[in-house]
Amino acid sequence: MTRVSIDLNADLGEGFGRWTLTDDEQLLSVVTSANVACGFHAGDAATMRRVCELAAARGVRIGAQVSYRDLAGFGRRSMDVPPAELAAEVAYQIGALEVFARAAGSRVAYVKPHGALYNRVVRDEEQAAAVVEGVLLASAELPVLGLPGSRLHEAARKAGLPVVGEAFGDRAYRADGTLLPRGQEGAVVTDPGEVVERAVSMARFGMVTAHCGESVPVRARSLCLHGDTPGAVGLARRVRDGLEASGVRVEAFA
Amino acid sequence: MTRVSIDLNADLGEGFGRWTLTDDEQLLSVVTSANVACGFHAGDAATMRRVCELAAARGVRIGAQVSYRDLAGFGRRSMDVPPAELAAEVAYQIGALEVFARAAGSRVAYVKPHGALYNRVVRDEEQAAAVVEGVLLASAELPVLGLPGSRLHEAARKAGLPVVGEAFGDRAYRADGTLLPRGQEGAVVTDPGEVVERAVSMARFGMVTAHCGESVPVRARSLCLHGDTPGAVGLARRVRDGLEASGVRVEAFA
Amino acid sequence: MTRVSIDLNADLGEGFGRWTLTDDEQLLSVVTSANVACGFHAGDAATMRRVCELAAARGVRIGAQVSYRDLAGFGRRSMDVPPAELAAEVAYQIGALEVFARAAGSRVAYVKPHGALYNRVVRDEEQAAAVVEGVLLASAELPVLGLPGSRLHEAARKAGLPVVGEAFGDRAYRADGTLLPRGQEGAVVTDPGEVVERAVSMARFGMVTAHCGESVPVRARSLCLHGDTPGAVGLARRVRDGLEASGVRVEAFA
Amino acid sequence: MTRVSIDLNADLGEGFGRWTLTDDEQLLSVVTSANVACGFHAGDAATMRRVCELAAARGVRIGAQVSYRDLAGFGRRSMDVPPAELAAEVAYQIGALEVFARAAGSRVAYVKPHGALYNRVVRDEEQAAAVVEGVLLASAELPVLGLPGSRLHEAARKAGLPVVGEAFGDRAYRADGTLLPRGQEGAVVTDPGEVVERAVSMARFGMVTAHCGESVPVRARSLCLHGDTPGAVGLARRVRDGLEASGVRVEAFA
Repeated sequence: MTRVSIDLNADLGEGFGRWTLTDDEQLLSVVTSANVACGFHAGDAATMRRVCELAAARGVRIGAQVSYRDLAGFGRRSMDVPPAELAAEVAYQIGALEVFARAAGSRVAYVKPHGALYNRVVRDEEQAAAVVEGVLLASAELPVLGLPGSRLHEAARKAGLPVVGEAFGDRAYRADGTLLPRGQEGAVVTDPGEVVERAVSMARFGMVTAHCGESVPVRARSLCLHGDTPGAVGLARRVRDGLEASGVRVEAFA
Repeated sequence: MTRVSIDLNADLGEGFGRWTLTDDEQLLSVVTSANVACGFHAGDAATMRRVCELAAARGVRIGAQVSYRDLAGFGRRSMDVPPAELAAEVAYQIGALEVFARAAGSRVAYVKPHGALYNRVVRDEEQAAAVVEGVLLASAELPVLGLPGSRLHEAARKAGLPVVGEAFGDRAYRADGTLLPRGQEGAVVTDPGEVVERAVSMARFGMVTAHCGESVPVRARSLCLHGDTPGAVGLARRVRDGLEASGVRVEAFA
Repeated sequence: MTRVSIDLNADLGEGFGRWTLTDDEQLLSVVTSANVACGFHAGDAATMRRVCELAAARGVRIGAQVSYRDLAGFGRRSMDVPPAELAAEVAYQIGALEVFARAAGSRVAYVKPHGALYNRVVRDEEQAAAVVEGVLLASAELPVLGLPGSRLHEAARKAGLPVVGEAFGDRAYRADGTLLPRGQEGAVVTDPGEVVERAVSMARFGMVTAHCGESVPVRARSLCLHGDTPGAVGLARRVRDGLEASGVRVEAFA
Repeated sequence: MTRVSIDLNADLGEGFGRWTLTDDEQLLSVVTSANVACGFHAGDAATMRRVCELAAARGVRIGAQVSYRDLAGFGRRSMDVPPAELAAEVAYQIGALEVFARAAGSRVAYVKPHGALYNRVVRDEEQAAAVVEGVLLASAELPVLGLPGSRLHEAARKAGLPVVGEAFGDRAYRADGTLLPRGQEGAVVTDPGEVVERAVSMARFGMVTAHCGESVPVRARSLCLHGDTPGAVGLARRVRDGLEASGVRVEAFA
């Protein structure tokens, strides 16, 4: 019998100059894929270099966490960026990160949109196509990490790019397999034990209990962990331990 | 008898968003090496992409024009950037440009510091070493274009990087072969005929008439042309025509 | 019989650092109200100071042209800025401009949103309210220049702020008095004579010929002129001359 | 007998967007003067508004902490900004803060340069004059907080601006009354008891024990406290308590 495996990804390097946000060292001891900020919503050049060195040293895969150009808003404000600009900005960020990944003996191994861009390309076909165009400028083989069923994944598939779906142990799902929007009651699961249990259920059975109580399929090769709130790293560690204790192999997606 | 050859370089892509500065199309019909702005003093991602496409289509070599992070000052204000930051910022810019160069079927073929950074690394050993460290992060083989005799060239040589010296047809030289500082009377040669004549003399004989009247040696494999003033492109064209008319082959440095 | 009067406004100071866009000196000899960029989409501090000095010297009224924080996009990309941030950013820009207006012996006399923000607050109630909140932080008496019938004007009126409606001599109107969207054929009137004629008709009779041929009312105390395209200043001058020749007094709104 | 009094100032509002640095609420319960970041090295508009509201509510005086335009370097990198630009940038920052101070029922009551600019204007006459020119653009009456004996204070006095000297309880002094440069051994006093003792000695007797052991005069109407390191607020509180216990009245400078 083949053992189930799952990738764990988290956002890293989200400081900027004097400011820090995530405990990158600690997170790198938990995750198998590091979504490294590339300077547009966070992440200065020196931080990018250091995170790439740490990740490479620990065998953690490096991904480009691409964003709208918006330091003041941390990339959390949806923006009507014309497709040609957006495509070029995505490529620019990937290229900048690639230097540090290679210098550390690694490579940029995937791309994941950040924040408002992540949410927008779930439905916005034009921006989804622009992100894919940007990825293609950098490489014809980079996997795109995102929400299963998103326009982004559709566009990536159409362009021949590999796609990797992700799920969230700490987010409530609706019966149709989509996320209950933040802001709605119960949208974020805060009980650590419950988060671990959901993560295990997703990894082992590809199922999760939806908000309505029904069991729904959640197909994901990667679980997204968060590192930017107090206690987040501890919870991430518990999720990883819980997965391994239940026989799930934690490793970067193939 | 071997014919003499010379490279012509100029700054391109120095707009930002809504703003433009240089007539990139026209300049690309004159120069053999394009110093492309990489987003730190000028140059948004979409502009970088377009300039790389145009340069590649015309066989013009692409170089990374790296700068201090200073859009508001156009990279013209000397900054005490700590070496580790500066090295990472230089690598970041090269990597970002490399995406567009490669997507256009070309490569980043050299690095040239811009503005205040260019001037500072003539003498500042620490920042010169930092720029070289940044270039090495990106590649161990990228030529560094700069002032002959500069600390930058010293540091590059020590690190095993190729160096390419440049000269200025429109700048006055002192008897010791250094530039008469801007601001001093006669520092900039404005008469077009004289600029052409000096360029030809530099390319053919490696000599130029210094401010004091003496003839001094100026060793340069590249001549720097300017494109950001009214009439600049016309003058650049005249220099190229003058060089070719005098039997100098205009081509990218080896 | 009272003579009709009209205000002429245009965007000024829209350069940034090394880059320039509008011919501020020329425009200031035409307009009666200067919408001065405040640093968020364009306009560095030194430019703001100079434009305020020029405007004050010529008796041209100074207005704060407030924008989303987006230099790379020139404020032309709609952004989902949370209301509390937007309000604070609007106030910040007004305050920054006020220093230079006062130092020049004048005052910030009105506020006009720029670009994507201008368009968004035509319909977006939340952002319209945020802009008004920002204006109120700066002053309870500043007139808000904008599109008649916009949410912005509604919100301003509700808050007790004076509103000033503007019209466009070079834009096509629909029968309901709204603008034909850019991008649609005929949206921009390019024939200079026609622009002048429409401006005169708006100023004298509050009427303009709509796209469909019908005559529709356009109530505006200010006409917006453009200065950022070749020939724009010449056209602006012709509009002013045409208005004065037809007996309209060109002066800042009361 | 008159009781001695001293002002306590600290940097506040030094976050940016998603990032925070100082515990503004706690610091505001300790200091009498708040150096509020104005957006150039830190401090977004919403943060500036909130800090002004908190400061005004507690009767803490508001000062403009002006900086080089350098978010990436947190204003800690000396920059060769031309005087005209620097003057305008200083005025811009003061104006932007003034909106929020006034909206909160207070005023910008003084100006203090930040980081690299603070250090530079100790000796750089040209930039010192530019800062003073910027202050004068905003107001002819704003006190300038800085190092006693600095070029900044000289320039301010010459221009008729009030000056306020400050001292540092946690920094070692040389026999000539200047600070032992950071980086030198013993430059920063870390023992809390010693910091308190030095602060009391400065406030009560205008004297401090210099690095060499000698007692030297330190004339200061304000003591600078730090809030951006772990434990910093606790130490600041101890300094205030120590001052009050020794009979020093802690209050904003006159």
